[in-house]
Amino acid sequence: MSKAIDTIRKIQTGELPPPPVATLIGFTLTEVEPGRAVIEFQADRRHANPMGTLHGGVLCDIADAAMGIAYAATLDEDETFTTLELKINFLKPVRAGRLVATGRLVKGGHTVGLLECDVVDDKDRLVARASSTCMTLRGEQAAGR
Amino acid sequence: MSKAIDTIRKIQTGELPPPPVATLIGFTLTEVEPGRAVIEFQADRRHANPMGTLHGGVLCDIADAAMGIAYAATLDEDETFTTLELKINFLKPVRAGRLVATGRLVKGGHTVGLLECDVVDDKDRLVARASSTCMTLRGEQAAGR
Amino acid sequence: MSKAIDTIRKIQTGELPPPPVATLIGFTLTEVEPGRAVIEFQADRRHANPMGTLHGGVLCDIADAAMGIAYAATLDEDETFTTLELKINFLKPVRAGRLVATGRLVKGGHTVGLLECDVVDDKDRLVARASSTCMTLRGEQAAGR
Amino acid sequence: MSKAIDTIRKIQTGELPPPPVATLIGFTLTEVEPGRAVIEFQADRRHANPMGTLHGGVLCDIADAAMGIAYAATLDEDETFTTLELKINFLKPVRAGRLVATGRLVKGGHTVGLLECDVVDDKDRLVARASSTCMTLRGEQAAGR
Repeated sequence: MSKAIDTIRKIQTGELPPPPVATLIGFTLTEVEPGRAVIEFQADRRHANPMGTLHGGVLCDIADAAMGIAYAATLDEDETFTTLELKINFLKPVRAGRLVATGRLVKGGHTVGLLECDVVDDKDRLVARASSTCMTLRGEQAAGR
Repeated sequence: MSKAIDTIRKIQTGELPPPPVATLIGFTLTEVEPGRAVIEFQADRRHANPMGTLHGGVLCDIADAAMGIAYAATLDEDETFTTLELKINFLKPVRAGRLVATGRLVKGGHTVGLLECDVVDDKDRLVARASSTCMTLRGEQAAGR
Repeated sequence: MSKAIDTIRKIQTGELPPPPVATLIGFTLTEVEPGRAVIEFQADRRHANPMGTLHGGVLCDIADAAMGIAYAATLDEDETFTTLELKINFLKPVRAGRLVATGRLVKGGHTVGLLECDVVDDKDRLVARASSTCMTLRGEQAAGR
Repeated sequence: MSKAIDTIRKIQTGELPPPPVATLIGFTLTEVEPGRAVIEFQADRRHANPMGTLHGGVLCDIADAAMGIAYAATLDEDETFTTLELKINFLKPVRAGRLVATGRLVKGGHTVGLLECDVVDDKDRLVARASSTCMTLRGEQAAGR
């Protein structure tokens, strides 16, 4: 059976277009395998909050993407998923520069998975750490999503 | 002493420009008072993930903004703050439409505050619920932030 | 069909014994209806951490109980559930005294529910605020749990 | 200057009595160094919820202890701390047996630290994963705590 990861890999290689939110925020999927995904992102003035630093929510955007793709890459073609919740700790203010978010599956079961994500800056310093709980949807639950 | 809320109100009324991230994502501050802020946001195709629904991280963007502004509006002019952590539960998938995020201070102390945020759709259905912990920075801590 | 709440009510009224952990920690179920449960607890020296204050984990114990029972009270007899995750903010140190934890269902769906819990002291001051995500188990998932 | 870890080590070696909550719940500090602590715990029938499995809140008790002690072990004698918030994901139901909770400091700053904790069973399977945010208190803040 064809796996969801095949579709995701086509996004990574450019055969398929990136999702709109990736274009809007400006993040790129650079690596993916089942249970692991790497997102790269260039923080600049467009992402600043009133204090001139990177808006924390943008770190959620890239962490959510990295963890969601890592989980999606474990699914079969007829499965989809939803993220139930996400938690993030902001560890270091960022002004500008390249960030890398690495999402990985900590533990997956038949229906629910726990994922984590480290976001590091270009000096490999930890900027944020996130976790999320994803749930696989099948059959009727998956239809129309 | 001039309060931070005066500056925030100027953003709300348009006397000061909105922060860059608000323009990028497309959200607007519509109400603010000490400990409470309301953000409006129009979800559209630009914010979609690969499944065609609103990227969860974008809900973090608007919740983080609503809670951060609610907290900032309680500060004195020589104080600033940082968000230590944010947690969000995604309760309902969104495709498009107007969302309203209302952030409010649940409990504030001298240094740390707990905030919460409801995000509802145009039928007032709860789409997401978030909380965050903010910490006030003063003196040396605030300098250069 | 008989509902799980009938069994829970028998624990509340004393027809059935309380669960062992309630006896160990010393908490009591005082109110229950579908989606809402109230736990009372007397904090004393037995629950102290090395700093002489109530061990934070004990607030998790009573919040977890209040939210779990509130969720269980919405289930049918052939359903059971598991708590996927719990988050708590500690808002005020406690030395001793009576605490009341009120758990309530914020939003329930077919499979997953979000619950919240306030823990207040005898002056009705907010001591902690918690949330948790519960998942209903049915059929094979429920068997043997 | 004498460090808080010296006092903690005396609890570990038995020179000082364990905190009351450790005796009540039945957990033991087996290892400690600055930024890392290991708690052992024997789950038995006393800790069961109405479903006959380990009450989730008890996993918070031991995770909170492991992370709190790991953080405390980084402090000076005139400093103390408070745990602002704790998050836990429950990954596997437990009936009985020996559990080990390892708390560690992920990132510490001047005032705030992020800690994480893995709880594993006697076959080294991940039972729960937790994180918490701790804040150091000094001077007036520390007095009387």
